[in-house]
Amino acid sequence: MLWVVFLNPASHSPIATIQFIPFYETHSMTYPVLINGEWRVSTGTTTFQAVNPATTEAIAGDYPVSPWSEVEAAINAAAAASKATRGWPGERFAKFLEAYAAKIEQRADALIQTANQETALPVEPRLKVAELPRTVSQLRQAAAAAREGSWALPTIDSKANIRSVLGPIGPVVVFGPNNFPFAFNGASGGDFAAAVAAGNPVIAKGHSSHPGTTRLFAEAAREAARETDMPPGFVQLIYRTSHQDGCKLVSHPSIGAIGYTGARHTGLVLKEAADKVGKPIYLELSSINPVIILPGALTERLDALAADFSSSCLMGNGQFCTNPGIVVLLKNSAAEQFISVVAQKFEAAAVGTFLGEGVQKNFIAGIQALQKAGATVVTGGQPGGGKGFSHRNTLLRVDAKTFINNSADLQTEAFGNSSLMIVAQDEAELLAVLDHFEGNLTGCIYSDTQGSDDGLYDRVAPALRTKVGRLLNDKAPTGVAVSPAMNHGGPFPATGHPGFTAVGIPAGIRRFGMLQCYDAVRLHRLPPVLQNSNSTGAWRLVDGKWTQGDVVT
Amino acid sequence: MLWVVFLNPASHSPIATIQFIPFYETHSMTYPVLINGEWRVSTGTTTFQAVNPATTEAIAGDYPVSPWSEVEAAINAAAAASKATRGWPGERFAKFLEAYAAKIEQRADALIQTANQETALPVEPRLKVAELPRTVSQLRQAAAAAREGSWALPTIDSKANIRSVLGPIGPVVVFGPNNFPFAFNGASGGDFAAAVAAGNPVIAKGHSSHPGTTRLFAEAAREAARETDMPPGFVQLIYRTSHQDGCKLVSHPSIGAIGYTGARHTGLVLKEAADKVGKPIYLELSSINPVIILPGALTERLDALAADFSSSCLMGNGQFCTNPGIVVLLKNSAAEQFISVVAQKFEAAAVGTFLGEGVQKNFIAGIQALQKAGATVVTGGQPGGGKGFSHRNTLLRVDAKTFINNSADLQTEAFGNSSLMIVAQDEAELLAVLDHFEGNLTGCIYSDTQGSDDGLYDRVAPALRTKVGRLLNDKAPTGVAVSPAMNHGGPFPATGHPGFTAVGIPAGIRRFGMLQCYDAVRLHRLPPVLQNSNSTGAWRLVDGKWTQGDVVT
Repeated sequence: MLWVVFLNPASHSPIATIQFIPFYETHSMTYPVLINGEWRVSTGTTTFQAVNPATTEAIAGDYPVSPWSEVEAAINAAAAASKATRGWPGERFAKFLEAYAAKIEQRADALIQTANQETALPVEPRLKVAELPRTVSQLRQAAAAAREGSWALPTIDSKANIRSVLGPIGPVVVFGPNNFPFAFNGASGGDFAAAVAAGNPVIAKGHSSHPGTTRLFAEAAREAARETDMPPGFVQLIYRTSHQDGCKLVSHPSIGAIGYTGARHTGLVLKEAADKVGKPIYLELSSINPVIILPGALTERLDALAADFSSSCLMGNGQFCTNPGIVVLLKNSAAEQFISVVAQKFEAAAVGTFLGEGVQKNFIAGIQALQKAGATVVTGGQPGGGKGFSHRNTLLRVDAKTFINNSADLQTEAFGNSSLMIVAQDEAELLAVLDHFEGNLTGCIYSDTQGSDDGLYDRVAPALRTKVGRLLNDKAPTGVAVSPAMNHGGPFPATGHPGFTAVGIPAGIRRFGMLQCYDAVRLHRLPPVLQNSNSTGAWRLVDGKWTQGDVVT
Repeated sequence: MLWVVFLNPASHSPIATIQFIPFYETHSMTYPVLINGEWRVSTGTTTFQAVNPATTEAIAGDYPVSPWSEVEAAINAAAAASKATRGWPGERFAKFLEAYAAKIEQRADALIQTANQETALPVEPRLKVAELPRTVSQLRQAAAAAREGSWALPTIDSKANIRSVLGPIGPVVVFGPNNFPFAFNGASGGDFAAAVAAGNPVIAKGHSSHPGTTRLFAEAAREAARETDMPPGFVQLIYRTSHQDGCKLVSHPSIGAIGYTGARHTGLVLKEAADKVGKPIYLELSSINPVIILPGALTERLDALAADFSSSCLMGNGQFCTNPGIVVLLKNSAAEQFISVVAQKFEAAAVGTFLGEGVQKNFIAGIQALQKAGATVVTGGQPGGGKGFSHRNTLLRVDAKTFINNSADLQTEAFGNSSLMIVAQDEAELLAVLDHFEGNLTGCIYSDTQGSDDGLYDRVAPALRTKVGRLLNDKAPTGVAVSPAMNHGGPFPATGHPGFTAVGIPAGIRRFGMLQCYDAVRLHRLPPVLQNSNSTGAWRLVDGKWTQGDVVT
């Protein structure tokens, strides 16, 4: 193995890898990790490679599995960065976020090319037109929120001189998922933006399926951090650790909070470790996102519904957190017709590529588990059919009685291009199905526009409401707008706490704040956002009223 | 044992025990539990009695330890109540809370007499003038918040028609502590008021040290619930369960969230059970509430500070969550003088009575643990000196080096009339002491009024800020105003999550809400607080601006 490492003459640490990309892409070498502002040769002894899911071939370049000493170095640097930035105005974090967004745009082509290679997600429209613009927009929205300060719910009781606001919670570890290499990336996505907007350093744990993409982000973030005078440990990147070290990381005394988006099992292991020492851990785990189609809607617009549903379900090869994995129908000929039309669309649609071999394996296991639990295959059910790691678009069905009797197994997530149709004999069975749902991110109800479904809607909606974070009408769940009113969250096991959202500003930022109250603190010592004069124009709850004005004493 | 039970002719269940109080107080019998709106004879086979801490004698009347079947019946009734109240306007919960507050006032004398007997807390001013008025005031503030709706942060994106609001999280179990028989009681306190204001039924777990007080509250709550047409399972009471059943209760699928105030060990056992299944559990555990007195303040007003500190530390015999258990001083003659004056005040002050034998035992163990860890007794240190369960007012001291080297043991909480003075050699040592603090509810800094301490303040305050929920200047921590800006919370292990407060409206209510988003939901189907017309005048975040107005489309 050939090693060419240029050392920084001052610090003797390796210089940023950006200069070596052409070399890395043709030769085998281990990429460094980003610790305390520098790209360091990892001291880890094991490595892994990314795999191109479309060709199933490994991509040149090794990524290190960091040993505990390296993880600890990152934690210490993050703690120092947290200390160094204490009391900084939101403006400082905003400037970094904006500089970072600009740097991402500057290297958009490299990011898109690398992500396409590592994830098989299409360049257009997905990566180029949808996800990259969304990512920089999130960073800029977070910057605006950080600058202005309303997100932190500043609250002033002027008579008692008690004032409170959400302040930085401390270093945040962000575990990004496999399915959004940009918008949920640990080094650039929604949790990253929110944690920074709240004033916290981030240790990004890159997802193993797209380490190159994450590396490019970290390079841009490091440059932006330097240019905006952030402390060296403000943004760091490690690619992988042992499971044990992952648990030590999330439960370390210097860590403030954790954001995790990914598989349920790993998430729950991390949750247990973090919970034990009272570290807030925000999880986004699996969700099957039930869709209830009421009979009037089928009578009114069956073909449109089938088209809408099929396209939502197969979008991105079904690899969305909000993918509609269950459809509930009332038994009648229209329901049979609907299933049949959807099956035809599933057969006609191109089969996409999975994000990786693991996704394919879990998908196959999921489909088998559903069948074992009583579901039957309407169409699909076989691996292959697309480029690389793939599986035929798969539609399953089961009757409501079987579902009710075996609801846990029949809620196994088959993450990918599949869905399960549940056919209920009557309304009572349909409502019983809802009562057996676990917590989900979303729930949709389709009803007719003339009112014939309204009575049933009024019985279905309250039951579904408590099971899902976001309730939709006549709309597929796969679009997750970055809106202040969005909830990308929901009851366990979809997330770890039903009061928080992972998407949307300002609410998403609040996850990474600790409530800081100032009781009788002398006025000149208060943070700017709590002083009588409202310098940033933040919305503040002053003596019971929301206002952008000054406190009049 | 003589049993006289009047049965309800309709339901054959026992009639409310209020009618039997004179009988209960002179004879031995087992009190019923409140399940699904009725006082039921417990099926438990073991019982316990309250003890008068001032006389150390048992109080007549047995209270049942509820078996699992009884706990389960309460859970099922609460789940039914939760279902029955889905979609109710805040007005309904407000009416109940107000009726309940009035009923508490009607039976104030009985409550105060019983609480005084069970806790030895003085009738005046504590129970009558301070705690009872605070309790009914909290209930009425919660009612006003429920009626008006701003607490739930209604957020509207009118262009996208995405709207969100905090809705009821589901049945809440409230475990009340021993030290506030009214204001934090599981059946009447802050968590109770907040859970109900958010629209949730409550299962109160009474504290074993004051079951009679809790029973009187539950009787009043039951009457208020009947008069305001709440479902029968809306307020329920059990007195005690096995530890195992307590864990089953907090992790039951039908439970929405848990509020717990009390000892750390029990709280952490419940936390583990709840965390495992993603049930939000809000804990208020032990806290030692450090006080930092800067040298200029001692020079300026030593006697006033000693008086202020001693009175805060011994108030309620030191049995406050925010009791100042640690004082940090810079070594000099004024610090020695301060310790000496406080010691004199501790010796001169009357010794109070502990809330129970367990508190006395833990206090003695705490003082011994601190001594074993290197602290020495300045004054006190011996049991007795007051009526019943008591211990002499105890002041300890330790040098900063010893504290830093053994900081975990030296942060053992001795809940009661004691405090530990830490004397630091220099500023660096003082700052190192702060770095070793665990999470706390409060932290106080006293500085001089002329500015001589300001430089040091600026180094001390940022370090203390991240360790405490509430930072105070020149003020003792024991007063916890029910203010919208209050934070009665803080980092672990003071609580389980640093983003929430147990005292204060509206923030305290938000703990018991789940985020409910409505995406493209037809306008007439939205809950009233999210409709275009703002019927309750709630503050809503509409298109980025807080307003009480309607949505203009």
